[in-house]
Order: sequence, then C-alpha cells, then structure tokens
Amino acid sequence: MRAFRPVLYILGLLLCGLGVFMLVPMAADLVAANGDWKVFAASAAASVFAGVQLVFTNRQRSMGQFGVRQAFLLTTLSWALLTAFAALPFLFFGGGLSYAEAYFEAMSGLTTTGATVIVGLDAAPPGILLWRALLQGIGGIGIVVVAILILPLLRIGGMQLFRAESSDKSEKTVARSIELVRYLIVIYVTLIASCALAYWIGGMTAFEAVCHALTTVATGGFSTSDASFAHFDSPGLEWVAVVFMLAGALPFIAYVNTVRRVGNPLWRDSQSRVYVASLIVVAAVFALSIASSLGLPLSEALRIAVFNTVSIATTTGYTTVDYAEWGGFVGTIILLLTLFGGCTGSTAGGIKVFRHQIMWGAAKSYLTHLVSPNLMTVQRYDGRVVSDEIVRSVLVFLVIYVGALVATALGLAAFGLDIVTSFSGAATALGNVGPGLGEIIGPAGTYASLHDGAKWLLAAAMLLGRLELFSVLVLFNRQFWRW
Amino acid sequence: MRAFRPVLYILGLLLCGLGVFMLVPMAADLVAANGDWKVFAASAAASVFAGVQLVFTNRQRSMGQFGVRQAFLLTTLSWALLTAFAALPFLFFGGGLSYAEAYFEAMSGLTTTGATVIVGLDAAPPGILLWRALLQGIGGIGIVVVAILILPLLRIGGMQLFRAESSDKSEKTVARSIELVRYLIVIYVTLIASCALAYWIGGMTAFEAVCHALTTVATGGFSTSDASFAHFDSPGLEWVAVVFMLAGALPFIAYVNTVRRVGNPLWRDSQSRVYVASLIVVAAVFALSIASSLGLPLSEALRIAVFNTVSIATTTGYTTVDYAEWGGFVGTIILLLTLFGGCTGSTAGGIKVFRHQIMWGAAKSYLTHLVSPNLMTVQRYDGRVVSDEIVRSVLVFLVIYVGALVATALGLAAFGLDIVTSFSGAATALGNVGPGLGEIIGPAGTYASLHDGAKWLLAAAMLLGRLELFSVLVLFNRQFWRW
Repeated sequence: MRAFRPVLYILGLLLCGLGVFMLVPMAADLVAANGDWKVFAASAAASVFAGVQLVFTNRQRSMGQFGVRQAFLLTTLSWALLTAFAALPFLFFGGGLSYAEAYFEAMSGLTTTGATVIVGLDAAPPGILLWRALLQGIGGIGIVVVAILILPLLRIGGMQLFRAESSDKSEKTVARSIELVRYLIVIYVTLIASCALAYWIGGMTAFEAVCHALTTVATGGFSTSDASFAHFDSPGLEWVAVVFMLAGALPFIAYVNTVRRVGNPLWRDSQSRVYVASLIVVAAVFALSIASSLGLPLSEALRIAVFNTVSIATTTGYTTVDYAEWGGFVGTIILLLTLFGGCTGSTAGGIKVFRHQIMWGAAKSYLTHLVSPNLMTVQRYDGRVVSDEIVRSVLVFLVIYVGALVATALGLAAFGLDIVTSFSGAATALGNVGPGLGEIIGPAGTYASLHDGAKWLLAAAMLLGRLELFSVLVLFNRQFWRW
Repeated sequence: MRAFRPVLYILGLLLCGLGVFMLVPMAADLVAANGDWKVFAASAAASVFAGVQLVFTNRQRSMGQFGVRQAFLLTTLSWALLTAFAALPFLFFGGGLSYAEAYFEAMSGLTTTGATVIVGLDAAPPGILLWRALLQGIGGIGIVVVAILILPLLRIGGMQLFRAESSDKSEKTVARSIELVRYLIVIYVTLIASCALAYWIGGMTAFEAVCHALTTVATGGFSTSDASFAHFDSPGLEWVAVVFMLAGALPFIAYVNTVRRVGNPLWRDSQSRVYVASLIVVAAVFALSIASSLGLPLSEALRIAVFNTVSIATTTGYTTVDYAEWGGFVGTIILLLTLFGGCTGSTAGGIKVFRHQIMWGAAKSYLTHLVSPNLMTVQRYDGRVVSDEIVRSVLVFLVIYVGALVATALGLAAFGLDIVTSFSGAATALGNVGPGLGEIIGPAGTYASLHDGAKWLLAAAMLLGRLELFSVLVLFNRQFWRW
C-alpha cells in the first residue's frame, strides 16, 4: 500500500481543488438569492475535508517512486473519485435525483459527455447550471493535459506517437511540462473567454454565455435549457458554436506550436486538416440529403447539417433539431460521427482522427504487402515513421473499442432498451458525445427514464471512453497488481 | 493479358462444370413434368458454351506462371462470373425477377448466404428449389477448398496460421493437395447424405430432405418453404438441423485429421472447442431471456434459443420464429452472432472464431505489455507461436470488416432503409448469414421489396464477406496491376 501513497496524496489535492471550485456556483446562488447555495457550501466542505484527510495521511518527505503503475491508477481514480464528490450538489439540490443519477450527471460533466438526467433545466437554480458547465470546463482542460503529458508516456493506444522528443525524467523536462501546462491553460481560457464574448454579443445573457462557452470549448454540450441550442433559435449563435466546438476538438498542442512558432502550426497539422476536410464532406452530404428528403431550402439545410455534424463529430452534443425522425441515412451518419471522434490531445472524445489515419495506412500497406510480399513499405505520419508497435497499439485500441461498444450495448439491451437506443447509447457514452438515437435518448430526449443500472453502466462507459480505455482496463490485468 | 490466360482457362472449366450441374434441376423438372426444364437446358447450354469458349481461347502448352496475382484474380472472378451464369435460371423461370434480383439470389446461393428475393417458394417448380439448394451445396465445398488450400497461401487476414507445414510447390505438394480435396469431398458428401437421411426419417419428403441437407451442411439456409423451418414445426427436425449446421461450421481440416488419425482431432481442435462453448453460453442466456420475458416453459425456450443461436452463429439463417418482435436484447444477441461467424475452413462465414481468439490474445498481451514493458510475452494458438505478422493481419482484417460493414450500412441507408435494417442487412450479407433484423429483412421477411441498387450492394457485400475481404480488395490496389 505504501506505493499508492503518492497517488492518494495527489487525489487529496485534486479533491481540495474541486471543493474550491464549488464556491463558484455557491457564489452564483448567493447573488441570485437562491437558498441552494447551502448545498454547494456543504458539498465543498465535504470535498475539502476528504481531500485534506488524504493529503495529511499520505504526506511523504519525497514523492517516492512514481512510475507507470501510479500514473495509471491516478488517471483513473482522479476521474472516478472526483465524480463521486462532484455528484453531491446534484444529489442534494432538490431535483430528486438518486445517487446513481447524480453520479451519472457528474461523470457526464467531468468527461465532457453532456448526457443529462435533469429535466426542467430552464427553471433550475443558477448554481446547478453553472456547476454543470464548470464540471465540463474542468474536465476539458483535465483531459487535454492528461492526453498531452501522461497518456503518451503510458503508450495508450498509439499515443506514444505524440511523445515529446526527450522523455527523460530530468528536471528540465518537469520545468518544460509545467511551462506547457501554463500555455495550455492560457489558450483554453482565452478560447472560453472569446467564445463567451461572442455568445454575449450574439444575444445570450452573460450567464448563458459563460455557461455555454465552458461547455462549447470543452466539447461537453450541457446547456442551460432543456431545448439545448434550439432554445435560442439563432443562426448567428449556432455559427459561433460551430467555430468554438471545432476549436475545442482540434489538437491543443498545435495551438501551442502556433503561438510558440515551433513545430507544425495548426494549419499544417495532419490531424486537423484531415478532420476539417472530413467534416466538410460529411456536412455537405448531410445537407444535400435533408434538402432533398425534407424539401428544405439549401441554406436552411446547410445550417442544420453543419451545426449537427460539428456538434456530434466534435463530441459536443448540442442539438437544434430532432434528427431522430429523419430516417436511416441521417441516423447512420450521426451514429458513425458519434464513433469517429475528434483530434487527439483535444477536449473531444471518440476513436480520434489520428487512429483513423493510422488504420487507413495500415490497411493500405497490408493490401500492398499481400500482392508484393517483398516490397518494403514504411508507414509515415506527419513525416515521421510509424513503428510497428504504434500500429499494433492503434489496432488493438479498435478491437477493445468495438468490444466495449458491444458489451455496453448488450448491457443496455438487457435493461430492456431497443437495439438503436442500446447501440447509440453505448457509442455516445464511449465517445463522450451526449445524445444518442431513438425516442428515449435521442436529441429530443434525456436519460432520466433509464434504469439506475443502465445509468451506472453508461457512467462507466463514459469513464472508459474518456481515458482511452486502456488507462482503466489495465487495472483489471493481474500483472498490474504484481509489484 | 497473357498472364491472365491460365485464370480464364480455369474459369472456363468451372463454367462448364456449372453447366453440367444445371442438368440436375433440369432432370427434376422433367421428372415432375414441369415445363421449366427448358429454362435449365438453355442456361446449361449458355454456360457450357461460354465455358468452352474460354477454355479453347486460353489453352496453353503449360500453365505458365500461376502466382499470387492469378490466385487472387481466380478466387474473386470464379464467384463473380459463376454467379452471373447461375443467375440465368432465376431470370427466366417465370418468377418475374429482374437481373439484379436473379444475380442476388445466385450470389446468395453460391456464397451460402441464404437471403432470398423469391416469394412463394412453396409453389415454386422443383427445379428452381433444387437449383437454389445445389448452388449452396457447390458454394459450400467451394469455400472449404479455397479456405484450406488457397487463402492460407495468399496470407489472407491471418489465414497463414493454417498453412500446411511444407508449402513448397513440389509435385508432392500437388499430389497431397489433390488427396486432401478428395478427403474433403468425401467428408462433405457423407455429411450431406447423413443429414438428408436424418431429415427423411424425421418426416421430410425425400425432395425436401435432399434440398435441406444441401443447405444445412453448406450453412446456407435456403429452404423449400417461405416459412423456412417453421413450415415443419418439428422439434426432431430442428435438432437434426442443429447438429448438421454445427457440423458445417466446424473446421473441415479437423474432420480430415480425425479420419486420418494425424494432427488434432475434432475434439482437441482449439477453434471447435471455443466455438461450441461460446454457443452453449449464448444459447443459455438467450433461453433464459425469452423464458422470462415471454413466459415460455424452459424446454420450449431452449428449443427456440438453441435452434436460432446455432442457425445464426453458423451463418445458416434458417428461422422458426419472428425474433424481430422480441425486443432489443434478443435483437442485439442476433446481431452480434451475425458478426461472430463460424470456424475458419468451414462452410460458415463471418469474422471467424480463430480471429476472435487471436484478437483476444492480442488485447490481453497488449494490456500486460502496457504495465510491464520489459516482460516478453509470446502469443500462442493451439500450441504454435503466433507471429506478429499474423496478429497484424487479423487486426487489419477487423479494421476492414468494420469499414465494409459501415460502408454497406451507409449505402443501404441511402436507399431509404432504417438504421436497424441497414446495419443488420450489411452484417448479414458480409457474414453470409441470410436474415437480418427489422420488419423488411427480418426472419419473417424477404429482400424482394428492396431497391435493385440495394440488391447489387448486398450481393457485393456477400462476395466480399465470403472471400474474406482481401481477395476482392487487392484487385482495387494499384500495386496489383503493376507486373
């Protein structure tokens, strides 16, 4: 157990931080003279108390060994444990949620999924609305930092491709990492601030603008209204959302490179280019399809298609229309976008663009190899040679992703859900998207009516998807617990 | 073009063979005094004429070089071209089918899929019924021979694992291959004969028994009645079918080993054991599920569950009930069984058991590798070491399988089908199963009402799935056409 102490120590610090963040919605409720502020005060106290306990019982002179195992454990436990405490306000705010539902909502926040069990958002206290948005904001920067600094070191599903050149544990690396995190935070906050400003100019109230800016850049998708973006019915606001959802789903390291003028800037980044090109093609097909099948004018079809394509593909999950009623072709596109995902090292979830690139390359070079076994082919990504190990990691990632999708869908179906709801629910949770397909969890529905067991299952799937599967699954490997 | 001549020569021989086989349903129609015999006479003449043309124009002193490229081309063209001629009786028998429909039906036969566009089977002429059964019989032994002798040499999707020890092209190997084919044919015919006998004893007419025996052992699933096996409503016949569908989906090389007393006999074969164990588990869950949800007595639930589990998992596709109405859990099980497939080197389709084994092993060893990068793990299959190349082949196979599934589903949805029909239709065609899910192509439906374009697409998917994807896809690789 000694080896876990540094992990518990950091978890304690994170819990304290979470408690401090709870003061923000508390302040919002106080300003609005809403008695709900006590819920946040109590939840903050509980979180800080538990955090301080962990910090003091696990304090050590030095950090001791902090290796791969501790990093895995910390990654998974930080999301699972913080969610347990972040759920407290949802449990006590008077919405009548069970703990399963509160945990679901908090997990949906911290993983930037955006699936909700709360009905009646328009009348909810401001504290709760801000807390939901804040959780996605925290979760967004959290996963960016983890995906850029930790997952590549853990060699998760091909992420070693994005390992910094020098990965030695010298002091210099630590200093450089801290500098990088500073850059990331500044960029993240700048994006959110610009987004909030644009929303406010576009006609949202200041409160709505801040809440939506947090959930837009985090590609989370929580809204302050049950009707999501349809509530505003404003093309201007939708285009602002499109820009900033996309900004949240592009690789943050490319922003840093652009600002620092080192490495590939955003417009030369391979993932970003493939991503934007793919979305343009999909949105065009989507627009043509609904223009012809629903008889919409092309401009209206384009507005709907672009917004919903970007919303689902960036794994945000805002909705403006009930596309669940538009037949199989639109539904299939949405389902595939749910699985496609954003760029790695962004706030978006899903399988991720670079994995599609690696898989496509592997398939192509395999076909060539079948015909000409003696022809040596080298797979490249962004000019760098892709090692066999990386290809294998990515391919195994797909195997596990499909396995997790199938297992989650089977579990949801066992709770009595139909096939489309089960599969789209599994896909949307794993991809951290939010809405699924079908009448229950589709764009016009919520997760409120699901069995509590299904909610636990979906929360687990969100965690699994958010941490790129392996961070969680290694904990179930016997080898992990042999020191 | 010279290099293609041996391919065209063999295709000619195969076409002549197909023409000769057409004399069997012609005889059946003559015996039944059905005027339809002329259709078969004309079709046979056309096939033999075209075949003889090919043989004489491409005859050569020696076979010339017959390498990997020729083998790929022959494999794909033999199914595609034979189907074009096998479709002729369907086009002209008076059922009013379009050529797209006739080609669909013939492809569904030769790939042992069992999806049908013909309504009114119970009143159809005996020749047509026998021709459908015969096509599946031919397609079944055809794929067994190809999968055992050719695909391992072409290193298709990990099939090199089943390469015979000595793969040199000596005279001895050819002699050994011919001997092996003889064994395979004897075993295949014995299985069909035993099955027919059992069906006949169980209460079918001799004609029904022969037709169903052909489509059972071939795991094809064409029936002589629109109601499929529900027509007989006989538990005895269903259990006979279960035994022989399973027999058709086990690896035929294990039968040969058992008969010859060399290598692993059937009961020690790794694939067979995993397969049977998996089916027992799935059938048990299926039975418990419908026993509780439909309130059936356990024996009745077991009968339904075992028959339908085995029918779908072996990619046969006989039906006894309309499980499409039984909700999401049963539907999800059926959909997953459709993708699961049978054993490699059998008449069954799908992803195949050994690939699931290899993928499971790869995922496990990857997880271990993440935690302990320095621990060397060796993946084994049936005692043999599995090379990295084989693992990669299998993983790329999954990538392409998922890609083909998604592309086919998207295409079907573009023809206006709903999500469940599109995805299950794509899965059932790629897996050579037959029935899909939903009202249109579900166990109680047919493919008759689909757009002709959707039928062409499904026929292409059947071919792609039957030939393990790569045999077809390499033809689209630029490298293939550079000699």
